[in-house]
Amino acid sequence: MTPTPAYIAETSFHVRYAETDAMGVVHHASYIVYLEEGRSHYARSRGTSYAEFERGGLILVVAEVQARYHRPAYYDDRLTVRCWIEHMGTRGLTFAYEIIRAATDEKLVTAHTRHICIDRNGQVTRLPEAWRTWGHS
Amino acid sequence: MTPTPAYIAETSFHVRYAETDAMGVVHHASYIVYLEEGRSHYARSRGTSYAEFERGGLILVVAEVQARYHRPAYYDDRLTVRCWIEHMGTRGLTFAYEIIRAATDEKLVTAHTRHICIDRNGQVTRLPEAWRTWGHS
Amino acid sequence: MTPTPAYIAETSFHVRYAETDAMGVVHHASYIVYLEEGRSHYARSRGTSYAEFERGGLILVVAEVQARYHRPAYYDDRLTVRCWIEHMGTRGLTFAYEIIRAATDEKLVTAHTRHICIDRNGQVTRLPEAWRTWGHS
Amino acid sequence: MTPTPAYIAETSFHVRYAETDAMGVVHHASYIVYLEEGRSHYARSRGTSYAEFERGGLILVVAEVQARYHRPAYYDDRLTVRCWIEHMGTRGLTFAYEIIRAATDEKLVTAHTRHICIDRNGQVTRLPEAWRTWGHS
Repeated sequence: MTPTPAYIAETSFHVRYAETDAMGVVHHASYIVYLEEGRSHYARSRGTSYAEFERGGLILVVAEVQARYHRPAYYDDRLTVRCWIEHMGTRGLTFAYEIIRAATDEKLVTAHTRHICIDRNGQVTRLPEAWRTWGHS
Repeated sequence: MTPTPAYIAETSFHVRYAETDAMGVVHHASYIVYLEEGRSHYARSRGTSYAEFERGGLILVVAEVQARYHRPAYYDDRLTVRCWIEHMGTRGLTFAYEIIRAATDEKLVTAHTRHICIDRNGQVTRLPEAWRTWGHS
Repeated sequence: MTPTPAYIAETSFHVRYAETDAMGVVHHASYIVYLEEGRSHYARSRGTSYAEFERGGLILVVAEVQARYHRPAYYDDRLTVRCWIEHMGTRGLTFAYEIIRAATDEKLVTAHTRHICIDRNGQVTRLPEAWRTWGHS
Repeated sequence: MTPTPAYIAETSFHVRYAETDAMGVVHHASYIVYLEEGRSHYARSRGTSYAEFERGGLILVVAEVQARYHRPAYYDDRLTVRCWIEHMGTRGLTFAYEIIRAATDEKLVTAHTRHICIDRNGQVTRLPEAWRTWGHS
């Protein structure tokens, strides 16, 4: 049996000047924000929004970030963030990512982020069912 | 004689979570980065790129920023930055901006930024002719 | 009658690499964050904290920012932010600032920010009396 | 034989408002910048500066970041970044970190960053000897 391939959300944008640093390249912390934008787009492309999720009284806390930097990006580069669910649990999930230079298809960054669902009182809680089905394409 | 209306460049994007602050709204410094993105888009939409400008050995230094904050923006809001040239000089220029919530057309921020053209040696110098014609629509 | 000179709060810190950009200097939006740090320090040095202010149900909204950039700062530079109250109103106030390179005493940025006091319901309201006396040294 | 304990550099600062997000806590990407500040301070406390390192024609590229988020930090919290060298190679090194709330000594974030030394031509090269001795306390 082959596994069902994950749904992959892709979003593209230009590198902003503020996101570069004195080395002349995109600062490594800026990519962490790009990953987040990848997740936001994932939710939007699934027909919902992380903003709605929070309005429903739940928060998806970032428990872990792991990123590998393969090649630099530069100001004004068009980047594509590919984002998919690598692991779906009952109370948390793991997203995986690739950040690609759109013009050359070079892989710049690969990353994972692990998240835990908590409620208004800070208690770890079950992910809503609508999110739990996201792992499937 | 009526003045020639300025060319206006518009670009839109979603507010990123990292751009918000503990008040629950977009942090005021994030808009300064949005203005820059408006300028970058202005250059792109004029058929060039600020990256090329810098590769040509010139830098457009920010000499002054002035921004008025009228209404807050929130995570995931779709914003539109409208950017045009308010004043074109021989060695510098002033951009004007409006940042608008796309869904409601509300004006959130109005701003101006003043720039001076310098060369590799840090000397104030003439703007290239290609840029000097930008003020016209 | 000579006016009472304003109380001036000074705080110093090193430029972080993330705050620089591809021009090799501190990005102009980073200084807007330094101004905020200057205000935070102002409150601390007056024996309170803006965090307490917010816990009291009030928010000091940024209504306007105006900054002039005189000279660049570089990674690892030690900067000093001098912050004082330029105008104190009943429902708002204006801070003024100088950002200085500590090693050379050069003035890098001068700025003003205007703020309005609002309550939990978003209504403009009176500044607490404890803050209103801050203008005096 | 017991291993020589690593030299640990500690630096402290207040959380800036701009570093928080709409959850009311420090945004997870802000800690990545704090780690960098920890490294900068490490170099300073060893009697040199990463700025000098770069002036010498070398760059310490970030190859990997891994961070675990244990507890949130809030605006105006005083944080301490503890930074030490976990592994020293000939052409790269790994820093380890703890970020602690100074008032309560709670561990908020633990992290590692892996770096590679490159020269002006982008070639991987040997770390200078002065840096290679840093692993020892």
